[in-house]
Amino acid sequence: MAAAIRFSRRHLSLTGTNPSVGTLIVRDGVIVGRGVTALGGRPHAEPQAIEEAGELARGATAYVTLEPCAHHGRTPPCANALVAAGVARVVGAANDPDERVSGKGYAILRAAGVEVTERVLADEAADLMSGYLVRSVRKRPEVILKLALSSDGMIGKRGAGQVSITGPVARAQVHLMRAECDAVLVGVGTAIADDPDLTVRLSGLQSRSPSRIVLDPSLRLPVSATLVQTANSVPTYLTPDQNADQSRRETLGSLGVRFLASEMHEGRIALPELLEDLAGQGMSRIFVEGGADTARAFLMDDLVDRIILFRGPDAIGSEGILSPLDENNIPQGFEMKRKEHFGADLCREWVRKL
Amino acid sequence: MAAAIRFSRRHLSLTGTNPSVGTLIVRDGVIVGRGVTALGGRPHAEPQAIEEAGELARGATAYVTLEPCAHHGRTPPCANALVAAGVARVVGAANDPDERVSGKGYAILRAAGVEVTERVLADEAADLMSGYLVRSVRKRPEVILKLALSSDGMIGKRGAGQVSITGPVARAQVHLMRAECDAVLVGVGTAIADDPDLTVRLSGLQSRSPSRIVLDPSLRLPVSATLVQTANSVPTYLTPDQNADQSRRETLGSLGVRFLASEMHEGRIALPELLEDLAGQGMSRIFVEGGADTARAFLMDDLVDRIILFRGPDAIGSEGILSPLDENNIPQGFEMKRKEHFGADLCREWVRKL
Repeated sequence: MAAAIRFSRRHLSLTGTNPSVGTLIVRDGVIVGRGVTALGGRPHAEPQAIEEAGELARGATAYVTLEPCAHHGRTPPCANALVAAGVARVVGAANDPDERVSGKGYAILRAAGVEVTERVLADEAADLMSGYLVRSVRKRPEVILKLALSSDGMIGKRGAGQVSITGPVARAQVHLMRAECDAVLVGVGTAIADDPDLTVRLSGLQSRSPSRIVLDPSLRLPVSATLVQTANSVPTYLTPDQNADQSRRETLGSLGVRFLASEMHEGRIALPELLEDLAGQGMSRIFVEGGADTARAFLMDDLVDRIILFRGPDAIGSEGILSPLDENNIPQGFEMKRKEHFGADLCREWVRKL
Repeated sequence: MAAAIRFSRRHLSLTGTNPSVGTLIVRDGVIVGRGVTALGGRPHAEPQAIEEAGELARGATAYVTLEPCAHHGRTPPCANALVAAGVARVVGAANDPDERVSGKGYAILRAAGVEVTERVLADEAADLMSGYLVRSVRKRPEVILKLALSSDGMIGKRGAGQVSITGPVARAQVHLMRAECDAVLVGVGTAIADDPDLTVRLSGLQSRSPSRIVLDPSLRLPVSATLVQTANSVPTYLTPDQNADQSRRETLGSLGVRFLASEMHEGRIALPELLEDLAGQGMSRIFVEGGADTARAFLMDDLVDRIILFRGPDAIGSEGILSPLDENNIPQGFEMKRKEHFGADLCREWVRKL
């Protein structure tokens, strides 16, 4: 199963709204068929592994990182395809919460006399399809909050624009994390102060830049901002409320900026509603990169699913902007999953149980 | 209610994945508050009408074209907002099949002592939110099949590219219909033979051009095609299968073409799977414009929700391509909804009951 999970990484974040699933078919200790959800999400992993295995699938064991699907389209459900291929045993990792699958995939297999073992390395597999799982269960995309803290707990310097808190290795890691998300989100304050481009600048991954979302109900982002100027090459969304200026909207729109309607509640954007709309647009993972107010808003609404904290070696001092969160006040319900050094920086990751 | 339904037309197809809903609050025969779902889908109609009515909402009657929503985000559900405003009576048109709303919106109102009348002009209201309703019930976008037939039942002429079958008034109607859809879809044969641009060319509505989808599993569409050359201004999707040439994909991608993975089944694209993915991308209405094979494929899979037949006055003759469908073989379960003359052309529309 560990090998199937590693194999499922191959198309991570390249499978549209479907999760990247891995399937290995093993016979007498030899892998006779491999499959990973194809680019864009179809075909699923199982039929590809079955095709590769051919007659060798008969009597073999299939390792699947997600419960095989059970709903009919034009192609047969994967559970039925495994039965038809004569697989004797299916070992599954994560269960599928989709109501059209949940438990039904395994039921089809058992009814046909296939031996089923569930939830082997389930957490490890689920971690690689967290966006799909959160979207399925919570009806909104997974929200990943990233914060980079100086040694004295600051995330920036007042009036200083972008401040380097972490080193180049940690920054490359952040770019990799962006590439595995559907959108990067910042508040308009950060977008104006830092003028970031929020793209993926890693060799071979430039084409993987996610969409960029700026929480900006009054359309304050200037036309000269990098995000606006590059909107034609990387999708950029602003979030006007009902009172946003129509002519500004038209100017920004003509530069390629797209819009997500936002609803205000007590002077703040209603985030659950916004996230629901993002899920409706096919987004499964949103990478929140600041600033402090934006991070605080997601935390206060209990909308964060994953927290990634980088800790740099240097102090910023009294001019600093204090982080809304550090290692000592992670909200309840989160569990630490990872702790890694990148150069002089320490990265820790917490995940909230689904 | 008829006035509320007319009012709901105002933002038709401009409200993202939410339906365009109309709300009128009436007191002593006078309209004291009006609301229509805001551009992009938020806020909903009800809070806007309540805000306009202010204290006058107390004891008044609210006419809503869709059951008020019942699920909590950051803003209160519309059903609770109506209760809080002191509305005495709610008259609703279409019921909401969304599992988080269905029946619950009305239950909240009744539990608070508000008098509720359901399903007043329900069919008329539902017709204006058919995309939302089909997507909610069938988990895929509404498919609208448009065919223009010559007097002798042909939809084109072999080897002749685009043939004018209908007159300018009917063609303008087709552009209006496109503007009310999320995407226009054709087969690659039609895309190559006709080299269409499939945009909306109506004064004031140019910016309403829907996305364009070409069923093209082998990426046969030439780079010189109008659809490819204009992909940067109007989103254009091709549907490569797993075996599509990777370098062709890169060339097309560099011109702005986007891709939807398609799965093949017995030599044809698996349409239910494709439609499910389109719904996942936030699309609610797909306008299928040909050719004959594409129309036939959707009909054979029983995936058509609305049929629009134009009939022109002239004959094409023996060189013609016979339509897969005419007025005399509309599939079972469809009901004629509309019959209208546009110049010398006759337009008839059939809708399948949800």
